[in-house]
Order: sequence, then structure tokens, then C-alpha cells
Amino acid sequence: MKRRTPTRSNHNYDYDLLVIGCGPAGQRAAVQAAKIRLKVAIIDSREVVGGVCVNTGTIPSKSFKEAVLFLSGYRQRSVYGAGYRVKSEIKMSDLTFRCNRIMQAEIDVIRNQLARNHIEILYGHAQFLDENTIEIQSSQGSVVKTADKFVIAAGAAPYRPPNVDFNGKTIFDSDDILTMKELPREMTVVGGGVIGTEYASMFAALGVHVTIVDARKRLLGFVDEEIIECLQYQMRSMGVTLRLGEEVRSCQEREDGQVVTLLKSGKIIVSDCVLYCAGRRSATNNLGVERIGLATEERGKILVNENYQTSIENIYAAGDVIGFPALASTSGAQGRLATCHAFGLEDKITEFPLPYGIYSIPEISYVGQNEEQLTQEEIPYETGIARYREIARGHILGDENGMLKVLFHRKTNQVLGVHIIGEYATELVHIGQSVIALKGGLNYLMDAVFNYPTLAECYKVAALDGYNKLRA
Amino acid sequence: MKRRTPTRSNHNYDYDLLVIGCGPAGQRAAVQAAKIRLKVAIIDSREVVGGVCVNTGTIPSKSFKEAVLFLSGYRQRSVYGAGYRVKSEIKMSDLTFRCNRIMQAEIDVIRNQLARNHIEILYGHAQFLDENTIEIQSSQGSVVKTADKFVIAAGAAPYRPPNVDFNGKTIFDSDDILTMKELPREMTVVGGGVIGTEYASMFAALGVHVTIVDARKRLLGFVDEEIIECLQYQMRSMGVTLRLGEEVRSCQEREDGQVVTLLKSGKIIVSDCVLYCAGRRSATNNLGVERIGLATEERGKILVNENYQTSIENIYAAGDVIGFPALASTSGAQGRLATCHAFGLEDKITEFPLPYGIYSIPEISYVGQNEEQLTQEEIPYETGIARYREIARGHILGDENGMLKVLFHRKTNQVLGVHIIGEYATELVHIGQSVIALKGGLNYLMDAVFNYPTLAECYKVAALDGYNKLRA
Repeated sequence: MKRRTPTRSNHNYDYDLLVIGCGPAGQRAAVQAAKIRLKVAIIDSREVVGGVCVNTGTIPSKSFKEAVLFLSGYRQRSVYGAGYRVKSEIKMSDLTFRCNRIMQAEIDVIRNQLARNHIEILYGHAQFLDENTIEIQSSQGSVVKTADKFVIAAGAAPYRPPNVDFNGKTIFDSDDILTMKELPREMTVVGGGVIGTEYASMFAALGVHVTIVDARKRLLGFVDEEIIECLQYQMRSMGVTLRLGEEVRSCQEREDGQVVTLLKSGKIIVSDCVLYCAGRRSATNNLGVERIGLATEERGKILVNENYQTSIENIYAAGDVIGFPALASTSGAQGRLATCHAFGLEDKITEFPLPYGIYSIPEISYVGQNEEQLTQEEIPYETGIARYREIARGHILGDENGMLKVLFHRKTNQVLGVHIIGEYATELVHIGQSVIALKGGLNYLMDAVFNYPTLAECYKVAALDGYNKLRA
Repeated sequence: MKRRTPTRSNHNYDYDLLVIGCGPAGQRAAVQAAKIRLKVAIIDSREVVGGVCVNTGTIPSKSFKEAVLFLSGYRQRSVYGAGYRVKSEIKMSDLTFRCNRIMQAEIDVIRNQLARNHIEILYGHAQFLDENTIEIQSSQGSVVKTADKFVIAAGAAPYRPPNVDFNGKTIFDSDDILTMKELPREMTVVGGGVIGTEYASMFAALGVHVTIVDARKRLLGFVDEEIIECLQYQMRSMGVTLRLGEEVRSCQEREDGQVVTLLKSGKIIVSDCVLYCAGRRSATNNLGVERIGLATEERGKILVNENYQTSIENIYAAGDVIGFPALASTSGAQGRLATCHAFGLEDKITEFPLPYGIYSIPEISYVGQNEEQLTQEEIPYETGIARYREIARGHILGDENGMLKVLFHRKTNQVLGVHIIGEYATELVHIGQSVIALKGGLNYLMDAVFNYPTLAECYKVAALDGYNKLRA
């Protein structure tokens, strides 16, 4: 718990640290600096804090999901029947209604936190003049500020390929999809990554006929195969058409307002609208990174080392701007670690395993390694599985398809990975995370007493299932 | 993970183990015996497995709660307003509708588990003839069976004091409350223990005007004071009247069908119905425990030592029949441990801390010690608090009042207790449970990355809050 005092420069800069961007990475980088009494400011080009996360990304989509689950009666389907709905005619406005309120609440919390920590916010567009100097342009004019260190947490924006006619009315990217005026009857989603899969499943739960197109052979390539099989099965059950291993040649609105998506295989998909999620582009254009010679990759990604340090020693980068995994949770951690390293604090990257959460319907979350990785590394593992329908809480929630899989070492019994699909997966995974981080074994999960009825009991059922396999 | 082979008697008994009762304690006792290849049977006086837990207790009340939360729109109140309801005229049948289905599913799971483990079920009423012999009486007649060891897991039933006129129409106990035909406008709940508090809060969430009477000065005496203050505040906000420190003199139905509850202080409470939860009585009458000289306490509670062994060496008892905490989760663990000890297995009572879950609205759960206990033991602790309204997931869920409190040792930073009130408290507590069990400290909670947005982030916020106090 020891935290050394920060190493400060002797130069006379305006700030010890300037942070570019006010999403999770930028906030945490700045707060960490403020906590150790450094002079810090955040530069934000929006007139509002929070970054993509609060304003167009994570928070709106998760609020939307909650409204979908509630108004569609999805959670009650196994009890009241699949046709059951809380509201018979669901409109887009019903679904986005709560988003603004939740966003506002989040913005208040962040603003409050920054104010409490005496973090200045400079509104305007930032551009590097040299490696210690930045120009900030806003409607108020332009100012020049200097700093000892920088953290670039400028985020990312949807990548818009030239063969797609984005119009914000029928052809959307992930930033403007929720501005859609009416719920479509048919929707094409291009891209089966996190954002595409999340939105596709939400609209499918609303009864929209969704088609997903992706060049890869399955959704969410980085997730455990069995979990994805379960996801794809459930999405297909909801009426989703999966067009995997297919590439898009073009995507255009027809005269009658329908959108035609032409695939390389010659197939044509006609739908009321298209959500095009072809990955994201780091928001590094106009930052002046070329002027100072900062190394970037394709789509503007900034290259960093394991300490989130760029090719220029005093400039760090964290969050979406450096690419995968580009999750709010990990971005926050990166921002904090960047500041720690920049000012010589001992805090190293913790070896605690990171959880990954995908807010699709059903939800997916995992921590640690998956079966493919362990097989490749030739680690002798065994699996234990619990299905939600085996435990009381699963019945009460009406989730018959959820499952939790524990992977553990055949010899040491150490837990190597936990993979969950189903309600509350993103919460539930943290039990497994702490067991892995704190070196608990299968024993812990077998012997611990869990509240009854809870989904947490899945851990015990899965552990016992795995244990019984050992004796085979 | 070492499990020795069981020590078996040389006598020629019908069974190695006979278990009386088929609730969580009985099931786990029997399954544990079956796993080590012992000959085991369960005697159950109901014609159906599951015990009170599945048939009249835990499962029905938790299913009822889920229906209340959904149909009352309680979860959506902060988003759509307190007056919002999914169903404007909620009937009892709407609320109990799903209970039967869930109960049936649970019964299937248990029956399946018992069959898979080749556990015989003997239906009928059990009575000890001597310490190795039992008579089982059913409509089919009577049989006598012998066994080396016994686990009494006969459960408990509501205690019915003589000054209360239980009629199953206007004056209920916790076993028949859900048979109520119509939702009352006013309801009196006598007893502010777990069951009384759970039902009182559920009916209050439905808009019923509830009055709780309890002789003690606060609800749920064993729970952390700050959490109870929060509960009482929220229950009062829902319109509940608390009459604490008051005793009931009598409780009778009046000619017009209203129920009059007369308090010792002279106060009179008139309501449509009364739920009388004056504790429970162990189901030990007619078991023949007197004949074999088994020691019992007030209300039929069977006395056991730390190994769940009764005053007779080969007879064990577990679950509700031995009293506090009488939770399904702990009962199951007790049953298993009883079997382990009876047959000389190494498995000792694990030192893993037990979580406690109260399914009130809002939900409460805790693990480890509370502030009063730590103060009494003179352990120098510090607290860290996170409120649901400080984190994104709290806003999305619309729970503005939830809170999570972490208690930790000022010097060692070890986590000593976690106390939660709010949505999903019973699930969330298991993260804290594993951190305590696996000797994680405040560091772990501060440094771990949690999925965003999740309620699990409360742990981090609370840990940071606590850490900052250390520097004061």
C-alpha cells in the first residue's frame, strides 16, 4: 500500500500533467495525479465531460439495454410466454427516454469528482506544438499551455468506410444509432464485434428482424467458443440471421428509402436500416501527433509500451486511443497506471486478471483464459459447468439458457478461467475474478456457502461438476 | 482436496445413514453420503421433496418478491416515477402465478439429483424406536428400518401463540400467507425478524399500508445498525408504520371481518389482515425424541455440538431444526458437515465466512463482522462506503438508495466485513466473501478492475473511500 512521492520536473511548466480527453482513461489519469497533489488539467473538445463512454457509447447503450429488457418483457418471457410485452407498441422514444437522465446523472458525478479533486477543465481542441507545449483552440480563441507530462486519452470514433453511405437516417454508425426516429422492422448490422453484437441482440429482443454480417466465421472472436455457440444459438432463436464469413461490397439507400446491402458473395439484404460497425478509428487526427513525431498505427492508433508510454518519453496514451480492449473499465485502469508511471510511482500493472463484459442479450462476461488458449498452451485443464436452469435463482429469473463454466488446472485445482453467458454475467464474473486473483482453488468454490437463491450458486455447482470429472 | 474413505460400522443395519427431512439440510446430508458410496435414504413426511424451503418458505417467497418487483414497477420507480405500475390492478393471483411453476421446477431438480445419486425416498412419518431404529408410518402402513447413523433435518414450522386466532383467511402465519385470496389495503405484520420484514416490505412495495409490530427496538437485530437504519428509512418512505418496542396482547377477527391487534401499550391496530411471524418451532414433536432421550430446548430445538452431533452420538441434526440462522444456504452446509463427521471424513467446518441474505425490498446481505461486533472486540477498524447513486450501474437500475460498506482493519488492511443494502445485495456480497475468505485486503478491491457499468464497482469506490480515511 506504499505510494512513494512523485518525481517532479524542475522545469517551470504550467502544469505537471495535461490530459487530453475526459472519458474514463482521462478522468482516472487526472484524478490519480490530483491525489498526489500534482497540478493537472483535462482538455476536452466537447463542452461536456465523460467522453464517448458517457455521451454516445457505454452509458447510452447500457441504458437502452435496460429499457429493452424491461419494456420488451424479455426477462419474463419464460414465465409469461414469449409474446408477453409490458408495452405493446414500443417506440424508440420509450427506449431512449431514460438515457438522457442517466447520462446527466453520470456527468454530474464526474464533474463533481473532478471539482472535488481540483482538476481544471480546459474546453477546446488540443494540438501539440512541441513535446511540452499544446495549443487549445475553442470558440473563445486560442491559448498555449505547457506541461511536464501528457496523457492522450482522446478516445475513438466509429470508422466510416468510403463504400458506405452514412446518412444518419437509414444508415447509422454506433454513435448515431440511438438517434433513430422509429423502430425498424428489419435491420442489418454489419460487424459482429462487441458493439455490433450488443445492438443486434437488443433490437432482436424488441422483435426487430436482424441480420448480422461479418467476414469472420463467428461473432466476438476473442470469446470462448462454447460461450459463443450458446450466444449464436440464442440469437438465432430470437430470429437473428447470421451471415458469417461474408463481406460487404456496398451499402446504399434505395429510392423507396430501403437500404440495400450487397455482399461479395452476391447476396443482397434489403432492410429498413443498417447499423455499420466496422471498428473504430482513434481520434488522433488534428492532434498534431505528426508534428512531434509520435508513432501511430493503422486507424490512428497510438503505439504504447507496457507502461502506456508512447514513442515520446513524456507523453503517454490510454483508453480507446490505443485500441483493444477499449472497454471503459480497462481504459480507466490504463489512465491511472500511465500517471503512476509518468511520475515514478511504484504502482505497477497489477497482475489481477481483467474481466471482459459484453452487454449483449444474453450478457457475456469472462475472466482468465479460455479453452482454446489453454489447449494451445498445453495446460491440462478440466471444465465444470453449471446451467442456470439447474439452480433456483435461474428459475426465478426465468433464464433457462444461462451457463457458467469454470476452467481449472487438473493437478493444482487452481481456477484458470470463468466464462459466463446469461443474466448478470457481468456482475457474477467478479467472484471468479477474485478467486483467480487471490489464488483460490476449486476447493474454495466447492466449500463456500452461497446465499440461496442466488446465481452465485452456479460457482458451487460448476465446481462440484468439475471435481467429479477428476475422479473419472 | 483429500477425502478419506468413510468409517463404516460392522453392524448389519438396513442403511448406513437415514436422513429425516428433505429440505436443503437433508438433501445435502444424503447426497454427501451417496457420493462416498454409503447406503442412504431420506424419510419425508410430505409426499413431495424440497421441505419447507421449496414448498412454503424460501422459494415461494422469493418468487413472490420477483413478481412484486416486476409488476409493481418498483425497479423503474426512479425512472418512470413512483406512481408507475406495469399492471394497474395487481391481484394476488398475478403474484403467485409463477410460484407454482418455479416450485415444480425446483422439485424436479431435487428429485433428479436424488435419483442420480441413488438415494431412496421413504414417504411417511418417522418416529424413533431406539437410537438405531425408526418406524415410518404412512397411509400404506408402517415399516421399521435400522441405520447406523441418523441426520435429523425435519425443519421447522411457524410458532402459533395461543393468544392469536389463526384462521387462514384474515390471520396468517408465514406458511399460509401466500394462500391469501385478495391483496389487502391494510396489513399488520407482527414480528420484525427475517420473514416478517421480507413480507412486510414486499406488500409495502405493492402499495399495501403495512404496520410492523415488534417487541425489540429495531428490525433484524443481528444486522449492522447503519444498514438497518437505511432499511427502516426506506420502508417508512414506502409508507410502512413501525411500532417497535411494542408487544401484542391479542389479535382477533372482528365481526365485520377486520382484524384487531391490541398492543400491551393500549394501542389498537385495525387492518384487513395480519401476518403473525412469532418465530418458528422445530418440527420435533412426534419424532420420538423423548423416547430415546434426545436433548431439546425451548420450541423443540435440538441441541447439537459444533459437529452437529446431538446428545446421542450416532444422531446428528442440521437445518431449521437446530435454530439460527435457519437459512437454506447454511442448512445445506450443516447437513453435509454432519454426514462428513458421522462417517469420519476429514472435512471440517470450513472457516470460510458465511453470507447472510435477507430478501426484503430493498435486499440486504452481509458477510463477516459488523461495526457493533468489531467495536465490542476492540478491533481498530475503518469503514469505506459507496452509494449506488455514485456509480453508473446504480443510475441505470434506478436504485438511488443502495449502499455498500466495507469494514477493514486499520493496520493490516484486511477486509473484516461487507454490508450491503440495495438491489442484488445477495449476489454482490459474494465478492466480499471470497476476498475475506482468501485473505485479500483493501488493496485488492482498490486495484481490481471491475466491469463497467456494474454494481461490483461499489467495492472499488468503497475501498478508495476507506483508504482516503486512513490518511486523515
